[in-house]
Amino acid sequence: MARVSQAHLDARRRQILDGAARCFARNGFHATSMQDVLKEADLSAGAVYRYFSGKDELITAIFTEVLGEVRMSFEAAAEQAPPPTPDVLIGSVLGRTYGARAHLTVDGEPVLPRLIIQVWAESLRNKDLAAVMREGFGAIRLAWGRIVEAYQDAGMMPKDVPADHVARTMIAAVQGFIAQQTVFGPAPVEVLQSGLRALMGAREPQPEA
Amino acid sequence: MARVSQAHLDARRRQILDGAARCFARNGFHATSMQDVLKEADLSAGAVYRYFSGKDELITAIFTEVLGEVRMSFEAAAEQAPPPTPDVLIGSVLGRTYGARAHLTVDGEPVLPRLIIQVWAESLRNKDLAAVMREGFGAIRLAWGRIVEAYQDAGMMPKDVPADHVARTMIAAVQGFIAQQTVFGPAPVEVLQSGLRALMGAREPQPEA
Repeated sequence: MARVSQAHLDARRRQILDGAARCFARNGFHATSMQDVLKEADLSAGAVYRYFSGKDELITAIFTEVLGEVRMSFEAAAEQAPPPTPDVLIGSVLGRTYGARAHLTVDGEPVLPRLIIQVWAESLRNKDLAAVMREGFGAIRLAWGRIVEAYQDAGMMPKDVPADHVARTMIAAVQGFIAQQTVFGPAPVEVLQSGLRALMGAREPQPEA
Repeated sequence: MARVSQAHLDARRRQILDGAARCFARNGFHATSMQDVLKEADLSAGAVYRYFSGKDELITAIFTEVLGEVRMSFEAAAEQAPPPTPDVLIGSVLGRTYGARAHLTVDGEPVLPRLIIQVWAESLRNKDLAAVMREGFGAIRLAWGRIVEAYQDAGMMPKDVPADHVARTMIAAVQGFIAQQTVFGPAPVEVLQSGLRALMGAREPQPEA
């Protein structure tokens, strides 16, 4: 039997995950069968089951990858002194996450918003997926906490707010921004970036001169 | 047949919606049967089906109510000149939404985060629910746009950012904050409030003196 290169195995795995992501985004996780995934990925059952035992493993693998990328980006930002301002940082991390999936669309719209909503719902019943989310989001939350402390040390953010509150708020803004696109339609990262920039420029009403 | 008062009808409807909300939050929308809802609400099938034809109508009714409340709060804020700052405004609206549902818990945790995640997922396949979300969130987005314009007029926010970008960002922060509690655990509204306050106090790194 011919030896199969790692590059070939990786490409095959990518093909399966991308096919599954398109199916889940198009028809929903529950209405998608493994047959649908095989067809979309244009592979045989043998080829697919060699990598993944079923739908639960597929959705967990897709989200492990997304969370891993985002986590690394924020952990790298936490090493900078000072880190980029929140609007710039979120723009670059989210821009990279979107950019790496620009080829993944359904009816011309990016799959990520529809996928993320289903991942959240599935995590309520799938214990492995819930564990992946707890670990991935937990690490992102810690990295954001360190970023906020670096802002505070550099005089870029008030020190009287717990760093973890800001961490939760920043993660919330990104999560909500991706999810809301299923209702409001797709939006480039710049929308969230400029919204954050406006909020950073907000101040109390000025007393009459 | 005795005439039934409107107050009685309203109380019965409330009983059914609250029972359904608890069931959906506890076991998920798909794993919940109408039998589960009858049992949780402690009512007969006849009593429940008089109000709702099934689960799809129940989840749509629950979310129509939540969105209606939130929409009215933000529309009222848009009438104020100037409106409260974003952190104060979100704190009061979200505080009211949570407060009205303080009796709705499952295993000691509020039902809202688990419910919202499932409503988002269901809206991908339930057209009526999707329409309710588009209309409700659309109105909230317009109200936020007017609030941001009022901030800009009062010198409370920079004028060079489209009001709609800020509207999407503020809605995203609230949506994400509620949804993330399924992973991070429950958090009082004050967490988001202080996170927003810190962001409002953020600034570029200061040049060395």
